Amino acid sequence: MGSIDFQTNPGRYRHWRIETGGEIASLVMDVDPAGGLSPEYELKLNSYDLAVDIELNDAVQRLRFEHPEVRAVIVRSGKDNVFCAGANIRMLGKATHGHKVNFCKFTNETRLAIEDATENSRQIYLCAINGTAAGGGYELALATDHIMLVDDRRSTVSLPETPLLAVLPGTGGLTRVTDKRKVRRDLADAFCSVEEGVRGAKAVDWRLVDEVVPNSKWADAVKARAHDLAAHSDRPKNAKGIELTALDRKIDGDTVVYPHVAIEIERARGIANVTLRAPNRPAPPSLEAAHALGAAFWPLAIARELEDAILHLRFNEPEIGLLVFRTIGDPQTVTSHDTFLLEHGDDWLIREVRHYLKRVLKRVDVTAKSLIALIEPGSCFAGTLAELAFAADRSLMLIGQREGDNQPPAALVLHEVNFGLYPMGNGLTRLETRFLGEPSRVQEAKEKIGTPLAGEDAEALGLVTFAYEDFDWDDELRVMFEERSSFSPDALTGMEANLRFAGPETMETKIFGRLTAWQNWIFQRPNAVGKEGALSRYGSGVQPAFNRERV
Amino acid sequence: MGSIDFQTNPGRYRHWRIETGGEIASLVMDVDPAGGLSPEYELKLNSYDLAVDIELNDAVQRLRFEHPEVRAVIVRSGKDNVFCAGANIRMLGKATHGHKVNFCKFTNETRLAIEDATENSRQIYLCAINGTAAGGGYELALATDHIMLVDDRRSTVSLPETPLLAVLPGTGGLTRVTDKRKVRRDLADAFCSVEEGVRGAKAVDWRLVDEVVPNSKWADAVKARAHDLAAHSDRPKNAKGIELTALDRKIDGDTVVYPHVAIEIERARGIANVTLRAPNRPAPPSLEAAHALGAAFWPLAIARELEDAILHLRFNEPEIGLLVFRTIGDPQTVTSHDTFLLEHGDDWLIREVRHYLKRVLKRVDVTAKSLIALIEPGSCFAGTLAELAFAADRSLMLIGQREGDNQPPAALVLHEVNFGLYPMGNGLTRLETRFLGEPSRVQEAKEKIGTPLAGEDAEALGLVTFAYEDFDWDDELRVMFEERSSFSPDALTGMEANLRFAGPETMETKIFGRLTAWQNWIFQRPNAVGKEGALSRYGSGVQPAFNRERV
Repeated sequence: MGSIDFQTNPGRYRHWRIETGGEIASLVMDVDPAGGLSPEYELKLNSYDLAVDIELNDAVQRLRFEHPEVRAVIVRSGKDNVFCAGANIRMLGKATHGHKVNFCKFTNETRLAIEDATENSRQIYLCAINGTAAGGGYELALATDHIMLVDDRRSTVSLPETPLLAVLPGTGGLTRVTDKRKVRRDLADAFCSVEEGVRGAKAVDWRLVDEVVPNSKWADAVKARAHDLAAHSDRPKNAKGIELTALDRKIDGDTVVYPHVAIEIERARGIANVTLRAPNRPAPPSLEAAHALGAAFWPLAIARELEDAILHLRFNEPEIGLLVFRTIGDPQTVTSHDTFLLEHGDDWLIREVRHYLKRVLKRVDVTAKSLIALIEPGSCFAGTLAELAFAADRSLMLIGQREGDNQPPAALVLHEVNFGLYPMGNGLTRLETRFLGEPSRVQEAKEKIGTPLAGEDAEALGLVTFAYEDFDWDDELRVMFEERSSFSPDALTGMEANLRFAGPETMETKIFGRLTAWQNWIFQRPNAVGKEGALSRYGSGVQPAFNRERV
Repeated sequence: MGSIDFQTNPGRYRHWRIETGGEIASLVMDVDPAGGLSPEYELKLNSYDLAVDIELNDAVQRLRFEHPEVRAVIVRSGKDNVFCAGANIRMLGKATHGHKVNFCKFTNETRLAIEDATENSRQIYLCAINGTAAGGGYELALATDHIMLVDDRRSTVSLPETPLLAVLPGTGGLTRVTDKRKVRRDLADAFCSVEEGVRGAKAVDWRLVDEVVPNSKWADAVKARAHDLAAHSDRPKNAKGIELTALDRKIDGDTVVYPHVAIEIERARGIANVTLRAPNRPAPPSLEAAHALGAAFWPLAIARELEDAILHLRFNEPEIGLLVFRTIGDPQTVTSHDTFLLEHGDDWLIREVRHYLKRVLKRVDVTAKSLIALIEPGSCFAGTLAELAFAADRSLMLIGQREGDNQPPAALVLHEVNFGLYPMGNGLTRLETRFLGEPSRVQEAKEKIGTPLAGEDAEALGLVTFAYEDFDWDDELRVMFEERSSFSPDALTGMEANLRFAGPETMETKIFGRLTAWQNWIFQRPNAVGKEGALSRYGSGVQPAFNRERV
C-alpha cells in the first residue's frame, strides 16, 4: 500500500464533511467509493478503510481544538438509506494480518477519542442513524453518548460479523454492547447472531439504541436532542479556536524529522531511535501568549509530532520491533510547561492539550513494539517526558558521566503531572501501575518532586529498571538489544500486552486486551482467512467451508 | 490420542504422591517419563502433559474431600535438583491447536482450584521449590499461597517461554506475576526475558518468591512454615473425610450415561444433549445422614458427573459445538437440597460441596461451545440447576403444555442459592452479570424466590431469553440450531468469550479472557508452530527462523 500518512485536513477530505456554525456541529459520513487506500476495492455503502478513519480521527481532533464553540456533535450519514456498512470487507479480505490488526487498533483509538471528547472536552457526541448501521457502522454509533435510530421500518442496527464474515466486530462492539450499553448477555448473543439486525422498539428494549424516532419527526428530533446535550457542556461560548497547522515533517531515507521529535532507524538491528526535544524556552508568560502560540505551543507540538511518529512506525515500519526513547534538552523548560499545564487546567485549550498528551501516551502504551527508555547525560526525562520512561518496558539510566563527555550526569525529574494528569487505559497513573505491589513507593516518589534524581537514586526509588555506570553501559545495552531482537516478535507482543496493564480493567483495557486478542486469533484462523474461509469467499457466491472443530 | 479419561485415583497415579498424616500433607511431583498420554514424548525433568495434570487435579480434589484434617499442603518435587520443568515442549510441539488450547484451559482450572482450596477450604498451599522451577513449574508455584526457594546457588525460578519457545507462559504466569505477586512491570519484563531465571535474594527482592532458605535449614524451614500456615486454617480437627468413589459411567457409542447426567450426541447436527436429573428424594434429614451418603449425596454426585461430562465433551468431542442443557425431575427435591446446602454451610463437607458446585459451573462458563438451555415441561431448572440456564448463551422456555403431553407447564424456580452461592469468575453472580444494566431486576427476581415461574413470567422478568408456545417451539429451535451450526466455530468461541463476562475483571477472568486469547493467537503463529518456528525446532539444534514483522 505504500507509506500511509496520518496527516490530513478538511480541505483534503474525501469521505467526511465537518459542518459547523454554532454550538452544534455535524460530522457527515459520505464515503467516496474510489477514495480508499487501495484501488483493489470500492468503498460502497459508506463502508470504510483506514483512509476514511484517518479523516475521522483528524475531524474529531480538529473539532476539539479549532471549534471551542461546538458543544455537541451529530454523527450522521450523507447517503440515503445507509448510515454505514462498517469496515470494507474486500479490504479486510485482501489486507495482511498485520494491517488488519493495526487498522483495528487505530479505529479503536478513534472511537475512544470520540468518547474522550464527550467525557473530557464536553463536546458531546450523538449518533443519528438514518439508515442501516451494520458492523463497524453500529460500532461507530456505540462510541457516541446517545444513539438515535430512525423508525422507518427499514433502518436497523446490526453486528453481523459472526454470521456473515466469521470474525468478531473488531472495533469494540462486543465490549461496548455488554459493558457500556449493558445489553443482557443472552440478548447480545441473539443480536450478534442476526445478520439483518434489530430495528424499532426492540432496539430500544434491548438497550441497543437510546431512542427511535418516526421519519416525519426525525430532523427536528435530532436537532432538539443535540441542543439538549449541548446544554450539558461547559465549553466556552466566545472563545477562539486554534488552527492545527500542517506538521513540519521531513522524511529522508531512514530518518523522519519534526521540530521536536526525530526518528532514526537502524534497520539491521530492527531499532527505531525516537528522540524528543525539550522546548527551547520556558512556558509562555501568560495564557494569552499560549493561545497565541497555537500549534507551536510546545506541549501541543510535541504531542502531535510524537503521535504522528508512533503511527508511522506502527504502520510503515512493521519490521522495526524496538523503539528506543531518548530525550534532549533542559529538564527545567519541560517542567516549566508542565507547571503551566497544571496552573491553567481550567482553560479550554489547556484542557485539550492535557487530554491530548494523555491520549498520545496511551497510543504508546498499546503499541506492539518493545519500548526502551535510555536516560543519559543531556537528557530531560522530566515531568511529561518522564512518562515515556514509565511507559517503557524497561528504562535504563546511566550513572555519572560518560568518559570524554563533560555533560553533567543524567537526572530524572518528577513533577506533579506524573501523579494524575496522564492515566493509562486501566485508570491508574503509570506510577500507580508500576508500584501496584508497593503503593507506598508512589508517595515516596511524590516527595521527590522537583529533585533531580541521579541514576542510583532513581534505581533505589524503583523509578528506572536498571542503572549502569559508563564502563558497563554499552555492553549492557548491546546485550539487551541483541537479546530482544532474537525473540519472536509475536511472543513479545503477547508478553508486553500482558505485562503493561496490571491492576484494574476498564472498557478500554478490555477492548485492547481481551477483544483484540480474540479478534487477532480469529484473524489467523482458516475459517476466516483461509482459501475457503468467510472473508476470502465473501461476495463470491460460494459459501465458506468451515472446519467444525471447536477450540 | 484416543479418548481422554479425567477419572483416576491415587492407586493409579504415576506422577504424584499424596503424603498425609496429620495437619500437613505433601503433594510430591515425581513424573514418570514414560507415563505421558502419548509415547511420542518422554516427560523428562518433571515436565508434564495432561496425564500429569489430571492426577494433580484429582489429588487437589481428594485432599479437600477425603482429608478434612489437612490444613496445609506442601507442593514439592520428588526429584533431585529439579522442581518442575513445566509443560513438556515436545508434547506442545506435536499437539493439535485444539489440544494445546484445551490443555492450557484445564491446567489453568487446576491452578485456580489450588487457589480456591487455599482461600475457601482453608487447605493452604505452600510451594517448596527444591530445584529449578521453569515455566509451568514456576506457574504451579505461583498458584500457591507461599513460595519458598532453596538457596543453593543452583535453584532458580524462571518463565523462559518467550526466549526459549516463542510462546507465553500458558498457565496464568504473566497474570499472576503482575496481578497476584504484583511484580513491577519492568522487572517482570526482565524476568520473562532471562532464560536461566532468577535465584536467591534477587528472587525475593523482585517479589518472585516469598523467601529463600539455605540448603542446610531447608527441610525444617519448610515444615515450620507449613505449620505456621496450618495455624490459620479453620478446618476441623477430628472430622472424617468422605471417599470420592469411582464414578458410575457408561460410554456406549454416542451416549455417556451417569446416574444423574446423560450425554446424547447428535453428531450430524454437532449437538450434545446434556440432561441432568433431580434427586429422587428430598435432602437428607440431617448433616450426619449427608455425611453418611458421602459421594452419593446428590449435590456432590451431580457436580462430579457434570464436571466429567464437560471435560469429556471439551477434549473428546471437538466437533460438537453446541451443548443443549435439559433437566428432568421434581424441582422441589432440587431446592430441598439447596436449602440443605445453605443451612449447613458451616459444615466442612457442605462447604466443600458448595465450592465444588461453584467451580463446576465455572467450568461450564469457560467451555468453548455454545450453551443452550431448554426449559420444557417436566424440567427442574430450580436453584442450583437454574444456574445452567443463567450460564447458557440462550435459554428458551416453553409456554404452557405440549400437545399430546399431559405434564404440567414448565416452571423456573429461583432459590436463595442463585443470589450468592455460585459467583462467576468475574466475582458476580450469574444474575448480577445478567442484569448489569438493570440492577433492580436482581431484586425483582429475589422477590420471586420459591415461586414457580411460568414461561411468560420468566421472560418478563428477563430470566430466560425467549419463551415460545408449543406451536412455535419446534420451528424456533430448529432455526436456532441450524443458524448456530452454520457459523464459524472460531467466531463463536471469540464472541461467547466476550459476551459471557460483562462487568468487573478479576485475575481469573484476565487469565481466561486476556492471557489465553493472546496465547491462542501465538499458538497459531508460524513463529511458534510453523516448520521453522520455535516449538517445532526445539531440541533440533537448529535455531528457529522468525518473520520479524511486529503485529
